Amino acid sequence: MKKLMNDSRYVVEEMIEGYVKAHPDYIRQLPENDRSLVTTKETREGKVGVLIGGGSGHEPGFLGYVGQGMADGVAVGNIFASPSPDPILEVTKAIDKGAGVAYLYGNYAGDIMNFGMAAEMADLEEDIRVETAIASDDVASAPKEEKEKRRGIAGEFFIYKAAGAAADFGYDLDEVVRVAKKANENTRSMGVGLSPCALPQTGEPSFEIGEGEMEIGLGHHGEPGIEKGPLQTADRVADRLVNDILEDITISKGDRVAVLVNGLGSTPLMEQYIVFRRVEQILSEKGIEIYRSYVGNYITSLEMGGLSVTLMKLDDELAKTIDHPVDCPMFVQK
Amino acid sequence: MKKLMNDSRYVVEEMIEGYVKAHPDYIRQLPENDRSLVTTKETREGKVGVLIGGGSGHEPGFLGYVGQGMADGVAVGNIFASPSPDPILEVTKAIDKGAGVAYLYGNYAGDIMNFGMAAEMADLEEDIRVETAIASDDVASAPKEEKEKRRGIAGEFFIYKAAGAAADFGYDLDEVVRVAKKANENTRSMGVGLSPCALPQTGEPSFEIGEGEMEIGLGHHGEPGIEKGPLQTADRVADRLVNDILEDITISKGDRVAVLVNGLGSTPLMEQYIVFRRVEQILSEKGIEIYRSYVGNYITSLEMGGLSVTLMKLDDELAKTIDHPVDCPMFVQK
Repeated sequence: MKKLMNDSRYVVEEMIEGYVKAHPDYIRQLPENDRSLVTTKETREGKVGVLIGGGSGHEPGFLGYVGQGMADGVAVGNIFASPSPDPILEVTKAIDKGAGVAYLYGNYAGDIMNFGMAAEMADLEEDIRVETAIASDDVASAPKEEKEKRRGIAGEFFIYKAAGAAADFGYDLDEVVRVAKKANENTRSMGVGLSPCALPQTGEPSFEIGEGEMEIGLGHHGEPGIEKGPLQTADRVADRLVNDILEDITISKGDRVAVLVNGLGSTPLMEQYIVFRRVEQILSEKGIEIYRSYVGNYITSLEMGGLSVTLMKLDDELAKTIDHPVDCPMFVQK
Repeated sequence: MKKLMNDSRYVVEEMIEGYVKAHPDYIRQLPENDRSLVTTKETREGKVGVLIGGGSGHEPGFLGYVGQGMADGVAVGNIFASPSPDPILEVTKAIDKGAGVAYLYGNYAGDIMNFGMAAEMADLEEDIRVETAIASDDVASAPKEEKEKRRGIAGEFFIYKAAGAAADFGYDLDEVVRVAKKANENTRSMGVGLSPCALPQTGEPSFEIGEGEMEIGLGHHGEPGIEKGPLQTADRVADRLVNDILEDITISKGDRVAVLVNGLGSTPLMEQYIVFRRVEQILSEKGIEIYRSYVGNYITSLEMGGLSVTLMKLDDELAKTIDHPVDCPMFVQK
C-alpha cells in the first residue's frame, strides 16, 4: 500500500509536528515528551482533568479530541501501540488542577499496563489522584457475560465525550468516572471489515480477506472477527450489526439512543450514510428514538475499509453530555 | 473495489435519505426533487441565497456544506455528474428571499450548462436574479494565462466559505459574487493521486496507476494529471505541490494565507498531517503567515488515494470570511 511519508520510523513524530503546527491555538506539546499533548486552553482550577490516549493510526482518535468539552490532554503511542508511562505522567501533571485526573482508554493489555503504571507514579510521586474508565464496547470481542474482556472500538468516542462533558459540568473525579463508566455500560459497537490497512513500517496488510468477502466483528487493529463471508448489501450488513447490538443490550420502544456510524478509513461517506439509512429504519420500526447521530470517520484504522455501528442508550444525564458543545481541532459541535 | 451499497442505481438517493435522517435539524428535502436540499434554518429575508452543487462522490462536498455560515441549499447530481436544472431551480426558488441567489460550482462543462439553464429559468419564469462564480483553482489543469479554463477542485471549499460568510454579513448579490470571485482569483490547488476510486455502477477504477507510482495534477474525477512518476517522500511531494502553486500566484513575505490539505478519500489523516508539516515549513521559510489551517477530507473522490494542497491568499476581507463561524452537518467552525 502506498504511503505519503518520509521515514516510516518517524511517522508519529512528523504527524504530531504537523498537527501542532496546524492547530497552534488548540494544542501544544509538553517539554519532556513530544508524545504529550495538552489543550492550549488552560484547564480550569478545580476541574477534573480528562486524559485520553492510545496508539496512533486511529486519527482523529485520539489526539483530535483534545479541546474544550472533551479531553484536556492525550498521550500518543506508536501505531496501534500503547503510549509509555512517561508521556502519560507528564500529561497528568500538566492537567491536574487539584481535582485529580480521569484516565480514559480502550481495553487493551498494553494500555492497561502503561496507564496503570502512570497512575501509580502519579499517586506515589506527585500525590495526584487518578481514576480510570476503560472502554469495552465491541460486542464481537467477547461474550455478553464478559463485557469487561471486550475491546474498546468506536464507542470510545461517546465515552470520552460523556466524560469530557461531565468534567466541564464541574463534576468531581468520582462523578466523572461514574459517568464515563455508565457511558461504557450503555454503549455497544459492531463492526465489519472489508479491506486491510498496512503498517507504515512493514507495508504488510493487517489481515487477509478475499475479493468479495467481508468480516463481521473485526477489531480495529485487524483482530479476527466472528464470521467471514461473502460481502452483503448495505442493508443486510446494517441489519446484522444492529441486530447483534440489540441482542446484547436491552433498548426498548421509547428509549433514546445516540448513533455513531464510524468509517474505518477508506470507506466513503456515501456508503456510511447508506448504512445509516438502514440503521435509522430499524430503530424507527422498533420505536427507538434517535437523539443525535454522528456519521463519519471518528476512530479509524489507517486506510482500513469497513465501518462500525455504535449505539449508546441515553438517560437524561448521558443525553446532556451528548448535547454539550465541543471545540477540538478534529471535532466541533455547537 | 468493494462497496457497502444496495443497488448501484440508487446510491445517491439512499445516501441523501440517510443524510436527511441523520441531520433532520439541519437539512430538508424539497417536495419536487429529492436532489434538492435546503437548510432547515430558514434563509433570512433580504439575505442573498447561496446555492452550491455538483456531482456526488465528493462528500462532504457538497451537501455537507449546507448550513449556517455557508450554503443555503444544494442541488445534488449523480456520481461525478452535474445536477440537472430542475433541482437547481427548485432550490433557487426556496432560498431566494428577495435579494437574489449566488450560484457557486466548479468549472465543468456539465455544471456550466445545467446551472446556466437553471439561472435562465429563474430569471424568465420566476423573476429571480442569479449571479454566478465558478471555481477554477486547479493549477495543473490549464496554463496560467488561461485560469478560466481550469477545473475546480478542493479550493471550492474556500470559495463557498467566503461567499457564505459574505452573504451572512448582509452583502448584496453583486458583492457576494465579487467576494466569491476574489476568493477564486486568490486560490490555487495542486493535487497528487496515488490510487483510483471506482464508480459504484461499474466497479472499474477511475484511472490506471502502477504500484509505486504517483500522478501529479490528477483531477478529482480521475482526469489525467501533468506527470506520472515514482512515488516520492511526503516532503518532496509537498515541495512540488507548493512550488507549483507559488510559481502560479505571487504570495510574498508577510502575506497571509489559508491552507487546506485535503484528503481525496483513503489517505489517512496521519499522512495528511505529515504533508502539512512540510507545507508549513516551506511557508514559514518564506515568511508567509498561515492565518488558518484545514487538514482533512473536505472534498473527496470516493475512495481515491492522494491529497491536494490549496492556498488562498488573504486580504482583510477574505480573512474575515475565513474567521466566520459555520454550522453544517459535516463541517463546524466556532
